Amino acid sequence: MKITEQAAMALATQLLIQRNALTNNAPVQARHLVDAEMKGHPSHGLQRLPRLLTRIERGLVDPRTSGRSHWRSASVLEVDGLRGLGPVVAMAAIERLQERAATSGIALAAISNNNHLGMLASYVESIAAEGRIGIAISSSEALVHPYGGTRAMLGTNPIAIAVPTAGRPLVLDLATSTVSMGKIHHHAAIGRPIPEGWARDAEGRPTTDAVRAKGGAIAPFGGAKGYGLGIAVELLVAALTGADLAPDIRGTLDAEAVCNKGDVLIVIDTARSPDLALRLSAYLDAVRASPPAEPGHPVSVPGDGAARRREATLQAGFEIDPGLLDELTALSRTPSSVLEGQT
Amino acid sequence: MKITEQAAMALATQLLIQRNALTNNAPVQARHLVDAEMKGHPSHGLQRLPRLLTRIERGLVDPRTSGRSHWRSASVLEVDGLRGLGPVVAMAAIERLQERAATSGIALAAISNNNHLGMLASYVESIAAEGRIGIAISSSEALVHPYGGTRAMLGTNPIAIAVPTAGRPLVLDLATSTVSMGKIHHHAAIGRPIPEGWARDAEGRPTTDAVRAKGGAIAPFGGAKGYGLGIAVELLVAALTGADLAPDIRGTLDAEAVCNKGDVLIVIDTARSPDLALRLSAYLDAVRASPPAEPGHPVSVPGDGAARRREATLQAGFEIDPGLLDELTALSRTPSSVLEGQT
Repeated sequence: MKITEQAAMALATQLLIQRNALTNNAPVQARHLVDAEMKGHPSHGLQRLPRLLTRIERGLVDPRTSGRSHWRSASVLEVDGLRGLGPVVAMAAIERLQERAATSGIALAAISNNNHLGMLASYVESIAAEGRIGIAISSSEALVHPYGGTRAMLGTNPIAIAVPTAGRPLVLDLATSTVSMGKIHHHAAIGRPIPEGWARDAEGRPTTDAVRAKGGAIAPFGGAKGYGLGIAVELLVAALTGADLAPDIRGTLDAEAVCNKGDVLIVIDTARSPDLALRLSAYLDAVRASPPAEPGHPVSVPGDGAARRREATLQAGFEIDPGLLDELTALSRTPSSVLEGQT
Repeated sequence: MKITEQAAMALATQLLIQRNALTNNAPVQARHLVDAEMKGHPSHGLQRLPRLLTRIERGLVDPRTSGRSHWRSASVLEVDGLRGLGPVVAMAAIERLQERAATSGIALAAISNNNHLGMLASYVESIAAEGRIGIAISSSEALVHPYGGTRAMLGTNPIAIAVPTAGRPLVLDLATSTVSMGKIHHHAAIGRPIPEGWARDAEGRPTTDAVRAKGGAIAPFGGAKGYGLGIAVELLVAALTGADLAPDIRGTLDAEAVCNKGDVLIVIDTARSPDLALRLSAYLDAVRASPPAEPGHPVSVPGDGAARRREATLQAGFEIDPGLLDELTALSRTPSSVLEGQT
């Protein structure tokens, strides 16, 4: 079934406020989950909300804080997330980075003691919306095996980059694993097998069973190079934030543990070149117009697909699993009026 | 045949000085090429030297400058390479970044009008040697086709990252193409075919002929994700340096054009956490000790192979193609004494 952006925002916001989220904080977290749905990534969308609500109820997430930060050096912001909502803490840090970058040209936030950020694209997009370059990386539980290895030793360690242009920014957002663990959970949830090469089971054997893969290890993307990027992200996040390394990380996929991963956000001013933004847009258009490998399947640029899917859902809404909607509705203490958007 | 590090350094340095390189600059460039050989990457080693010498003779490289730089903002250094030797300009910029990062925590150099940097690993290693994180990216001629495309639209757009630990730093250095164009040139030079999937010819058809591949396009590594990283690097470099985009770039593979690509270097202070460096080393050791996919082939960490190869060549020297050595010797105006290390 379909749900509109407005109804989903109202439901998610209400559920958070009912659990004592500040009225300023709840829509930030809700917007983040709803945006993931609208961009076609349900694995990072509303299916994460029930667990988040449980984490709030258990005191693992404080929905009233936006963290505490200080400038460790002139251009590096050290952020203690104080167990806040991931997007709330991150967006508060970005506001300080944007202000600092206006004079420093580059500013970095090293965030620890924060909850799951979800899709990183949203953060770098919000930075690019102000005309600056955004970069985000994040660590997580050990879910990915090394190239040439079999045991989960690395997080899925995503990298997101947005570069503003005269048109839509380039927006890259990728896990350094072949797939995100969110996607494997989604396959497990709908009972679908996973393709060969995605994962190994807990004993290190290749598997196509999504449920067994959840307890095993995902392959890094792109062989040795993708593994190299993943382990570089692992070390960068730990070295910058002081956060734990993957084998010791908990709290992004469970409702039992304090979240002890780290996040790094970077904001950078672009060069002050008069026709720069136009040149970047013209280049991306030339890439899109270059000859495709398969006729009828034009070349695309990172961010094109998500922007197209988001546009399509603005009017029509997006698909939501009826079971998930029932679950969320049951979790709401005033469900009917919220669903009709009357709050 | 083999050549020792000392003999190779003396030969390369002498060749550069004979073409008016400053005595401070020549060893910096020579060291860079010799290090690539010692780490087992001859494609980025001395085979690049004859063309570099021609570029100097033609005024495309000024071996007497180390560029001109100013702080565009508090933490961003704008560098005009003044057509200098790539490593000389980059190392001069790194010196200023290191100094600035001591108070700013992070500093970035946006370099334009500079010559080829060669292997990026050396730069980030030199940053990590001072206890800081180093990141380097660079643009180049259009050599790589988009994912789902057939025409060369992107540079090989390398990414290098070094993170200091209590032991050897993690050092990642990868082209976002399946292979570097240097490796395809090396295959062409020794008459060896390239594996399927590496490249397309000028007409966009898959090819295993290294000579045809030189005129065509290399595949991005890791499918859509590797392509995404490559195009992000492309845009980042252009947006930060104002340099041209791949289809308009010349001068890293020819002896005819001024080099108009861009380079970006970033230096970052790590967190001030007492046991951080030890924790990072212990983690890397745990990754190395984790169960391998193939018995007898232990898991390695980025930089392990290069460090091992370099170590092995310290005493024994490294392999050099006799034809290349003859060519270099002929280019030298006092060859015999140099080869015996008597300069």
